[in-house]
Amino acid sequence: MTTMADVAKRAGVSIMTVSRVVNNSGYVKPSTRQKVLAAMQELNYVPKGQQSSPHDTWMLIVPDITNPFFTFIARGMEDVARKHGFRVFIANTDEDLQKEQEYVQMCLDYQVRGALVVPVGDPSRENLVRLTEHQVPFVLIDREIEGLDADLVKGDIRETSRRLVEHLLDLGHERIAAVVGPLHSASSRERLDGYRDALLHKGLPVDESLIFTAPMTRDMDASFVDALVGRSDAPTALFLGNMFQYAHIVRRLRGLGLSIPHDISVVSFGNTDDLASVDSLATAAVQPAYNYGSLGAQLLLERIEGVRKTSTRIVLHSEMVVRSSTAPPPVRMTKKR
Amino acid sequence: MTTMADVAKRAGVSIMTVSRVVNNSGYVKPSTRQKVLAAMQELNYVPKGQQSSPHDTWMLIVPDITNPFFTFIARGMEDVARKHGFRVFIANTDEDLQKEQEYVQMCLDYQVRGALVVPVGDPSRENLVRLTEHQVPFVLIDREIEGLDADLVKGDIRETSRRLVEHLLDLGHERIAAVVGPLHSASSRERLDGYRDALLHKGLPVDESLIFTAPMTRDMDASFVDALVGRSDAPTALFLGNMFQYAHIVRRLRGLGLSIPHDISVVSFGNTDDLASVDSLATAAVQPAYNYGSLGAQLLLERIEGVRKTSTRIVLHSEMVVRSSTAPPPVRMTKKR
Repeated sequence: MTTMADVAKRAGVSIMTVSRVVNNSGYVKPSTRQKVLAAMQELNYVPKGQQSSPHDTWMLIVPDITNPFFTFIARGMEDVARKHGFRVFIANTDEDLQKEQEYVQMCLDYQVRGALVVPVGDPSRENLVRLTEHQVPFVLIDREIEGLDADLVKGDIRETSRRLVEHLLDLGHERIAAVVGPLHSASSRERLDGYRDALLHKGLPVDESLIFTAPMTRDMDASFVDALVGRSDAPTALFLGNMFQYAHIVRRLRGLGLSIPHDISVVSFGNTDDLASVDSLATAAVQPAYNYGSLGAQLLLERIEGVRKTSTRIVLHSEMVVRSSTAPPPVRMTKKR
Repeated sequence: MTTMADVAKRAGVSIMTVSRVVNNSGYVKPSTRQKVLAAMQELNYVPKGQQSSPHDTWMLIVPDITNPFFTFIARGMEDVARKHGFRVFIANTDEDLQKEQEYVQMCLDYQVRGALVVPVGDPSRENLVRLTEHQVPFVLIDREIEGLDADLVKGDIRETSRRLVEHLLDLGHERIAAVVGPLHSASSRERLDGYRDALLHKGLPVDESLIFTAPMTRDMDASFVDALVGRSDAPTALFLGNMFQYAHIVRRLRGLGLSIPHDISVVSFGNTDDLASVDSLATAAVQPAYNYGSLGAQLLLERIEGVRKTSTRIVLHSEMVVRSSTAPPPVRMTKKR
């Protein structure tokens, strides 16, 4: 495929000049224009359609590229994008607002046609408003932003959290600790809401000392569980925010000599990757991340094509898979004695 | 952060015009130039350095964004890129040469400063030559390309394959089947070389009927194992190419009623993700994918800075983790009778 750079080289001019000729914008000396057009013809250069341009490009901004949950979103987005002649760039913010701002900036500088964004959290609002100001349509994925009216595709996190905790309650657990992500993210607050819903519905008190926030990232520090399980009123079960928290906390618990589920039960939001979980023991909820991406891309398309002017909000159901990380609570030693 | 678009809006001109003023290229009417400069000052617009531009951008081209092995490469690349003021776009080829060509094209059209590429395989050569032709430096990651002299970071795949198979031989297995990816990829050929090395070193014949190629992707079809384990001379162990093959084949074997490792042992190249593998049973080799990305980025930097003119080839050691998917071969029923 011939590029603008090829044409520029052949015509002996800058790429900028070729761009000006191609886009009919800006001043180009007639003799130079002639040279560029001749080079385009010689090289069979096709200026639009088959040529990648900012207007063929979508951006996906995710907070953690190493979390399969987000790469599945990428996969779903791409399948729709390609069907409609768009290509996707993926950018990773590492849950960092500054990096998010930079990639939003790149959306503007590169004039991408639209974006799917999994925002860091509510403070991302300022970054996203810039997209709107510059008429770059975007769709929020997974995390709602308080007070921001935007297209959205997310999971039924509150209901799913409630179901996960109810599974523990049904097994007989009454002291259940919750670990969720930072509360600037709606997806963490919704997890906690669901946890409370389940306890309150069962008529159990919510013990705030059993509620923890911790990063949902690969480098989270699970050492706080040492004190938690060492308490005289230690929980018999844990409700966790995602697979990174599951992995770190389960590893920590095993390191403390605890056996799962005999000593302590664990439920978690899960890995979307049914393949990675072929050996998994985790009782977990699995979100349809691929569909977050594909439906988000559909919403974006509608915006680009101008067929819809008001925001659409899509909430998808999660599956719960019961595996072997959960069992009835252990018989208390105090009762035995 | 103020963008060119902001300046353009304020000055009432096109972004292209602002770009011409900023880059001192092309014709701009003096009065227009004055307006643009005034707008830049009013908005505190910083034209270079803090401004994203193609020259701040690197591209990572991977064959499967949903494979954690490749997202770890992204993570390693990004950490180095950011330290040096570069940002990274990630593109996913789906092991498809056509998509690879398109993303290479985008590297040219967007004038990215450099790229890390995990190529589809040897036929990717033509795509990559285009990068060289346009002076876009790149580093090959994971997969060498026959006859292409380029910077490279990869694993010691042949030696690691040999060690995985030797682990099976040491347990007493003699009939070991191999499943690797398509042979247009050097990384698949190297797996097979290591498999042969191990058998030949032990003085065992290589039975070509026990060698299979299958996709290394999430959608691979493992149904061929039905016939394999149904043979009268069925293998007692399998050597597999990656975690997708492991997951599909293990699932298939379990579906056939086989127990691992009692009925059949399985070794595989592994998931780089030590967290995803918290519950894993797989005896597997783990490649330092993060370092592929970070060292690849270092090599790219050297090229961009022009401090090195000849190709460098870095080969990294893989760890082997023995878990519970391997055991001595079952006692043959024929021997019992």
